[in-house]
Amino acid sequence: MSSARPLFVLNRACEMREVSDACRKAGKKLGFVPTMGALHRGHVSLLEESVRRAEVTVASIFVNPTQFGPGEDFDRYERDYEGDIKKLKGCGVDYLFYPDISDIYPDGFGTTVSVGNLGDCLCGPFRPGHFNGVATVVLKLFNIVRPDFAVFGRKDYQQLKIIQKMVRDFNMDIEIVEMPIVREPDGLAMSSRNAYLSADQRTKAAEVNKALSEVAKKFRSGCDDCKILLAEADMVLRMAQINDIDYTEIRDPETLELRQRAVKGDLVALAVRLGNTRLIDNRVL
Amino acid sequence: MSSARPLFVLNRACEMREVSDACRKAGKKLGFVPTMGALHRGHVSLLEESVRRAEVTVASIFVNPTQFGPGEDFDRYERDYEGDIKKLKGCGVDYLFYPDISDIYPDGFGTTVSVGNLGDCLCGPFRPGHFNGVATVVLKLFNIVRPDFAVFGRKDYQQLKIIQKMVRDFNMDIEIVEMPIVREPDGLAMSSRNAYLSADQRTKAAEVNKALSEVAKKFRSGCDDCKILLAEADMVLRMAQINDIDYTEIRDPETLELRQRAVKGDLVALAVRLGNTRLIDNRVL
Repeated sequence: MSSARPLFVLNRACEMREVSDACRKAGKKLGFVPTMGALHRGHVSLLEESVRRAEVTVASIFVNPTQFGPGEDFDRYERDYEGDIKKLKGCGVDYLFYPDISDIYPDGFGTTVSVGNLGDCLCGPFRPGHFNGVATVVLKLFNIVRPDFAVFGRKDYQQLKIIQKMVRDFNMDIEIVEMPIVREPDGLAMSSRNAYLSADQRTKAAEVNKALSEVAKKFRSGCDDCKILLAEADMVLRMAQINDIDYTEIRDPETLELRQRAVKGDLVALAVRLGNTRLIDNRVL
Repeated sequence: MSSARPLFVLNRACEMREVSDACRKAGKKLGFVPTMGALHRGHVSLLEESVRRAEVTVASIFVNPTQFGPGEDFDRYERDYEGDIKKLKGCGVDYLFYPDISDIYPDGFGTTVSVGNLGDCLCGPFRPGHFNGVATVVLKLFNIVRPDFAVFGRKDYQQLKIIQKMVRDFNMDIEIVEMPIVREPDGLAMSSRNAYLSADQRTKAAEVNKALSEVAKKFRSGCDDCKILLAEADMVLRMAQINDIDYTEIRDPETLELRQRAVKGDLVALAVRLGNTRLIDNRVL
């Protein structure tokens, strides 16, 4: 938290556009980290990577309503503007783009992105419209900020693959930089939603990553049968009385196609609910 | 047809991107005219406008399969590469982007644009998926060419409004320049599909614009009741034995909402079929 670089906050898309146009004209490399705020060490790792790679780093904070379904946690989603500002300054971020909803979705807004079949599996069926909402706002943010690269974490693995695919499919000239999951000491993947957990749920939550570790262990022992591998994960979760499981699956890491037999590099992903809180995690075999 | 400027043909998106990047770096204003080829005087007016406004003009020819429905005329769509090249040279166009389908839609392509409610009316219900296909390819072409402006004709009025809305909704920094409909001496709007018409159909086709003129005449005489106004159009079409009418409608020129009472500036639009050939036309009151 020692950077002396100032942080400028921009509230309007037109201001952000002006700044990024000026960067581009000056030949400065521009990195971008889109967030929904409530920044934790996972976000910090993305921000630090951008600051390391680029001359100018832009972060955005925008809790995007269109990626929350009815009954999801849009209204109670963690907000911590003052804390976020401190973290952004600490990382040496140059600009925070912090727009109002009406600037991103003015009256009459209607054109959206359809992400295709990468959005049909894993979290897709449990969160209808979620990935189309994510892709649409990320496309808009990319067009406003026009970065040379953007940094995303592997925690939201399906989102990462969908954004990479959108960038390729739409011929966008933006590099997508992937960063590993940052975890608590007990293995729980960092997430703004961890703040919702009760003490008891927080203890149980550590078992989510343990379930993934058990799958990896079994795979290393020579088993490639996905049913058997995933039974390991289910056992860990059930033992911890985590009974509300959306899915535990092994899939191709790029196409997200379901596997019968696992191979090195495959994705193991799961989503569970602890009370009202939905947690996701994944690991690559 | 006297321009001495050379025309460069680029077949790959990466080549096109390099050229447009170089233009931008050199500070040159870049105009873009996307087409499906079979260029006629309507296209020529768009190309000339771009050449007039910009230091560098890029035209594209790409018969986009995703905007044709099953049973539509993708396979028999007019192609005239040699003729097109002559016209592009004659207009002083600098670059033709002429990609292969596999370069635009590589294996696994899947992310698309959903145009929302502007695509639900007029031609939308008669051509399911058409406008999503148009918007997707135009977004891709815009991202490859990265023009300062792009020129579209009012002949495809609904397409024009959908593209303008996409550019606004997606925060794309591209000006959309509108150009008036170019007509044959007897009033038929220029269209690549006019080439399909038999001599008899060609004679009838002139009545399509006459139908619009009669609506405008009635409106100028003081009538604003859309039912009565459109009855004028229907009468002209029926008299000409044009009985296969997809629609004749009066709508708000921006939101495309249906009108009961017409006001100055409203859109009168129609689509008819002469044999297998679908013709559209419109005029603003």
